Amino acid sequence: MHTISDYQGYFLEYLSQKNTTKEPKNLYEPISYILSLGGKRLRPTLVLMAAEIFGGSYKEALDAALAVEVFHNFSLIHDDIMDDAPLRRGKETVHEKWDVNTGILSGDAMLINAYQLFENYDGETFKELAKLFTKTAIEVCEGQQYDIDFETRDDVTIPEYIKMIEYKTAVLVGAALKMGAIVADASENCTASIYDFGRLLGLAFQLQDDYLDAFGDPKTFGKQVGGDIIENKKTFLYLKALEFASDDEKKQLQGLFSLNPEDPTEKISTVKQFFETTGAKKATRSEIELYTQKAFLTLDKLDISEEKKSLLRLFGENLMNRSV
Amino acid sequence: MHTISDYQGYFLEYLSQKNTTKEPKNLYEPISYILSLGGKRLRPTLVLMAAEIFGGSYKEALDAALAVEVFHNFSLIHDDIMDDAPLRRGKETVHEKWDVNTGILSGDAMLINAYQLFENYDGETFKELAKLFTKTAIEVCEGQQYDIDFETRDDVTIPEYIKMIEYKTAVLVGAALKMGAIVADASENCTASIYDFGRLLGLAFQLQDDYLDAFGDPKTFGKQVGGDIIENKKTFLYLKALEFASDDEKKQLQGLFSLNPEDPTEKISTVKQFFETTGAKKATRSEIELYTQKAFLTLDKLDISEEKKSLLRLFGENLMNRSV
Repeated sequence: MHTISDYQGYFLEYLSQKNTTKEPKNLYEPISYILSLGGKRLRPTLVLMAAEIFGGSYKEALDAALAVEVFHNFSLIHDDIMDDAPLRRGKETVHEKWDVNTGILSGDAMLINAYQLFENYDGETFKELAKLFTKTAIEVCEGQQYDIDFETRDDVTIPEYIKMIEYKTAVLVGAALKMGAIVADASENCTASIYDFGRLLGLAFQLQDDYLDAFGDPKTFGKQVGGDIIENKKTFLYLKALEFASDDEKKQLQGLFSLNPEDPTEKISTVKQFFETTGAKKATRSEIELYTQKAFLTLDKLDISEEKKSLLRLFGENLMNRSV
Repeated sequence: MHTISDYQGYFLEYLSQKNTTKEPKNLYEPISYILSLGGKRLRPTLVLMAAEIFGGSYKEALDAALAVEVFHNFSLIHDDIMDDAPLRRGKETVHEKWDVNTGILSGDAMLINAYQLFENYDGETFKELAKLFTKTAIEVCEGQQYDIDFETRDDVTIPEYIKMIEYKTAVLVGAALKMGAIVADASENCTASIYDFGRLLGLAFQLQDDYLDAFGDPKTFGKQVGGDIIENKKTFLYLKALEFASDDEKKQLQGLFSLNPEDPTEKISTVKQFFETTGAKKATRSEIELYTQKAFLTLDKLDISEEKKSLLRLFGENLMNRSV
């Protein structure tokens, strides 16, 4: 077996081979740019790892891994336009460095390129990969739409929120693992279970992201702590706080989430206190724990060697400790 | 054999069955809207017609036809954003009726939906359709990029221009016909020839569109006559005029194409005179004739009955007479 960082390395080597700029340059340079911005390459690493866990070679899975990474970066380009984000991984976003039209068209080309990367697989495998990819990609779009819709709704329920982050983030983690399993010709039982492992881990990860946004260590959390509070984002913490709050607390919290003070320090600290006193902080931690345990339980039932289970467990633990 | 308007009718019926709005509404309503705006439905009609010409049933080709129409409308939504166009078929464009973000995301979902529509075909047919679709979709993106690039370039050559319109418009016409042929399990020879017929006819059509934009009858030409001249578009007419012009005429024409007068009447009439006197008008008509003849020549060599050839010839003639 290889280690997780081996797989990262294999993927990065393949990416640097494949990531060349063709004509027309104005279409392909932004693609090359976003793909070389870095990132943890979690999703493609999972594709390669899953292929070997189910008895295939990571080499056969490189194109599927690249498809997943290309799709993920397509969604980053288009999401950054929609969010009007100036920076991505500390560098200018594509629509900032070029313009919105370039971001739209280069993103479109990436979405199509992702499908193209499946063409080296035989008919049936191609169809299985493309179908899973399509289902996942549609869900990612729907998740993005729900996220946008939630900004202007004040009646978002917890199940709706979970569905939103499941679609927007978690299904692609599940699909990455399942694609590796498909390439390795794993049984339907196995491909379904590994998908669920990824989906549940993805949910735990996104809930943890919500949690760390408020309660993370500024030294280790990649983003600005309190960012979601500044932006009045209806995260799991916020929705749970509303659920647990008295009518009076509810009004206060909703009031705070209609403000955009120039100096947000006090708002952040008051909101965080609400998250603590209402019990939302604790409930969020339990929910993270629940999804993590559900993920590991799915793993236990998988019909693969203990050694391989450990590799997946290690990946999950690293991810939840944010050291990957 | 059915008639062309039969096929249009079958397609419209299928579209109205399939075109329902799902959740999230803000993602799917714009899709439903653009698909119901009308239009001639040329491309899906070609898919159905080709399927029957090669011995299949149009019914088997309905999903492929819908995929082509969904893709075409995806490209309209994103192109309208890039062109900042307020109207499409006399109605508000998606980004005007909703907003740019909605246009981006709904367009993305349509591109993915188009692939999904191939899933009812078996493994090998699915792969053939998806591969052709991917190749075509990438070319459409590249064509759009070349079109954007040409706006700010003053050294565009005629072969470059032909390649741009080939990618942006003609390949999808060829692909529509070829998809019908693939569904009907036609020979490789046949699928290649019918693709070429469509591609060449598409080129003739687009060149005629350039021509009619300047010299069309305002009563029958759907768009504003002189629109390309107002927008300083480097069409085939313009590039040919530059090629044939004396140094002095060239300077004058380039001068006119750097102006944006409030009342464009005089500019339009002067430019049209240049198109006439340089011989560009005549050369463009010859070029249209050339591509039309090339298209019909490809048809002659096809191994199908005379009756079926007539149907395709009729379609070509109607298209070039703009009565379809």
